[in-house]
Amino acid sequence: MSQHPSKCETPDTFVCEDYEEEESQLCELDRSKTYKGLVGIYVDDSLITFIDGDHGKLYYRGYSLEDLVNNSTFEEVAYLLIYGRLPSKNQLSSFKDQLIKERNIPDNILTILKSYPRNTTRIELLRTSISALSLYDPDDYIFTEEANIRKGIRIIAKIPTVLAFSHRIQTNLPLIEPSEELSHAANYYYMMTGREPSGDIEKAFDDVLICHADHSINSSTFSCRVTVSTLSDIYSGITSAIGTLRGPLHGGANERVVRMMLEEIKKKEDVLPWLKTKLENKEKIMGFGHRVYKTWDPRAKILREISKFFWERWERGEIIESIPDLVHDTEHGEIDNIFEMTELLTEYMINTKKIYPNVDLYSAGLLHILGIPTPLFTPLFAASRSAGWVAHAIEQLSDNKLIRPRLRYIGELDKNYITMHER
Amino acid sequence: MSQHPSKCETPDTFVCEDYEEEESQLCELDRSKTYKGLVGIYVDDSLITFIDGDHGKLYYRGYSLEDLVNNSTFEEVAYLLIYGRLPSKNQLSSFKDQLIKERNIPDNILTILKSYPRNTTRIELLRTSISALSLYDPDDYIFTEEANIRKGIRIIAKIPTVLAFSHRIQTNLPLIEPSEELSHAANYYYMMTGREPSGDIEKAFDDVLICHADHSINSSTFSCRVTVSTLSDIYSGITSAIGTLRGPLHGGANERVVRMMLEEIKKKEDVLPWLKTKLENKEKIMGFGHRVYKTWDPRAKILREISKFFWERWERGEIIESIPDLVHDTEHGEIDNIFEMTELLTEYMINTKKIYPNVDLYSAGLLHILGIPTPLFTPLFAASRSAGWVAHAIEQLSDNKLIRPRLRYIGELDKNYITMHER
Repeated sequence: MSQHPSKCETPDTFVCEDYEEEESQLCELDRSKTYKGLVGIYVDDSLITFIDGDHGKLYYRGYSLEDLVNNSTFEEVAYLLIYGRLPSKNQLSSFKDQLIKERNIPDNILTILKSYPRNTTRIELLRTSISALSLYDPDDYIFTEEANIRKGIRIIAKIPTVLAFSHRIQTNLPLIEPSEELSHAANYYYMMTGREPSGDIEKAFDDVLICHADHSINSSTFSCRVTVSTLSDIYSGITSAIGTLRGPLHGGANERVVRMMLEEIKKKEDVLPWLKTKLENKEKIMGFGHRVYKTWDPRAKILREISKFFWERWERGEIIESIPDLVHDTEHGEIDNIFEMTELLTEYMINTKKIYPNVDLYSAGLLHILGIPTPLFTPLFAASRSAGWVAHAIEQLSDNKLIRPRLRYIGELDKNYITMHER
Repeated sequence: MSQHPSKCETPDTFVCEDYEEEESQLCELDRSKTYKGLVGIYVDDSLITFIDGDHGKLYYRGYSLEDLVNNSTFEEVAYLLIYGRLPSKNQLSSFKDQLIKERNIPDNILTILKSYPRNTTRIELLRTSISALSLYDPDDYIFTEEANIRKGIRIIAKIPTVLAFSHRIQTNLPLIEPSEELSHAANYYYMMTGREPSGDIEKAFDDVLICHADHSINSSTFSCRVTVSTLSDIYSGITSAIGTLRGPLHGGANERVVRMMLEEIKKKEDVLPWLKTKLENKEKIMGFGHRVYKTWDPRAKILREISKFFWERWERGEIIESIPDLVHDTEHGEIDNIFEMTELLTEYMINTKKIYPNVDLYSAGLLHILGIPTPLFTPLFAASRSAGWVAHAIEQLSDNKLIRPRLRYIGELDKNYITMHER
């Protein structure tokens, strides 16, 4: 473990200057307060992503999400997030080549995936596999920024493969090797579903990936930054992020939205009665509200437009034709109405509660209509967000300070030790 | 993924009340400031550990570290940290039985450990194995506090086995199955070294484990709490913690202290010239200084006493006799002087710089003299700290709030999208 840039090597050991800095910083704080959840606390400056919650805007590296969705691919956006600028034609072409070259995973990682018990979540398999992949990375003991970017690209490239393999192993489907011809989105879709997507589906799926590629510092990104702030490696950082994403307060939401629609509400005519009862009981509605956005989440807006387009095609039967698995699914009930059900929820929530849908509401419906298996919804978030995690890890390390807050001890002190026979 | 206590299920979805609370909390903050590293920021209240940095005292659940080292075993301390009280005789006996029963790891985890490439760090193998162990945990989809404690006990019990197996596989030594007769410390020592420790060595090793069992919220513990704050599982939390510990600014320090002694300084007579040159060049000295302690780190004090006791026995040749591997090591030079070298560093640093040794300085020397292989120093920290991590995960979940701070975006906005051929 060496070759860390020396300027990063500050605490836990000896630095007098550091102590002085701390004291002056403390004066500006109200030390009597506890900032539970760190709500509203700025932990660092960043040049990556800006969320304008009041106006419902999202910017990656200064470019609006709408512009990026309209003009760029996921590969371009990943490049933009990591390097801070849009790639030239040659840069993009070389970046795409690297991603394609790194789609395969070591044979032993596949053997191991096959050896795990069935009925495990794809996200646990992903967390474990990314952790294991560091053992095979030729740059495992090199900690320069260039090496970190190479590792980051490998992680972004391999996540879809790990996920598709995991899912197909768990559901006893034949594995589909990564293609060297397809785009990142198209290959990912192909490995999961076994179908090469049409242009429309590829574009829609690519848009979903772009919409989830970064969102400033939610909990998973934060845990990634905390982890690398000890100058630990980027695989550790992204392993932490995946584990953090697993929680239902974070990445689990889109999966739960689709289950709410299909297993709880089920029918279009039951949407409003169901919703009213929920609200009367002050229960939460999955897919609505956000800590930051006070209006439409721009991602929800974009995915809603795409969903509408596909829903209209669905009504004409085109989607069912191109995604034959869905025929089977429709046997469960009126799930072809998922877009209309979503719209009913949205209208009522905005009109009566002024609470807006978040990205999970519309990504859930869209992924469902594109034929993505539900157990892959949360992991898909990880696949997409890996671009942001890599960018944040690199940014954290570029001007690092160990992230270590305090806990306020509120218990007793100097308790008398009670010997065993007195207890 | 269900059965979370409902009171925990707050953000990211819809809760109006939550927004109001945020606003009021924000008013007490200086929103123009960025709290890089979160230095001095209290993130939560805690009943676990108190560090009195001014007086060099450390308390677990209100009991002083000295009392616990003098009177308790690691098992008792782990129980204390997790449950908040010292166990009765029956409670301790049942807790020890659970730990012993859980020392084994699934056959497939062992097969996998054997299948990994050689020359990987033990901490990467541990991070990966703990992540994988969740797949085998019968409580994987149960999220009650009782289930979390059961999972925590399994993790604490299995870490020494994973580490000892990993190390012996990596160095082509025969595996040693866990014993059902020995204490946690003695069994751990036995599996690593192949020797059942004498009473003195068992007690010293147990003391090292107790001294590292918790230290409030350093970065690894914090990343564990961030991870479980999304209501993710405890395996995810501890996987994050292990990855965070890997960094040289955190857990890597004791390993680097021993390398500094044995590979850089080497001889007793070179200690002071080496140290003076380092200080003149304003370089850091491993094993000295701490963000919190302004005087002796109580753990360093305890481990120094134990080291002195062993060093005196070393001088009489007793240690070399009981730890035959060390005979080989002494061929490299005057490493039998490691305690005296440490003392020289300490005296000079305190007298001239008023900078005190931290726990890493003395744990490194002591572990070395006890015959623990150096690549197992950082992982040993994880084995011990797992008790604290479990306690913190349980505490976080008992009154959870999603941990999500902010990043201050300082870049441009509304950049004009540049098409590919204009770049």
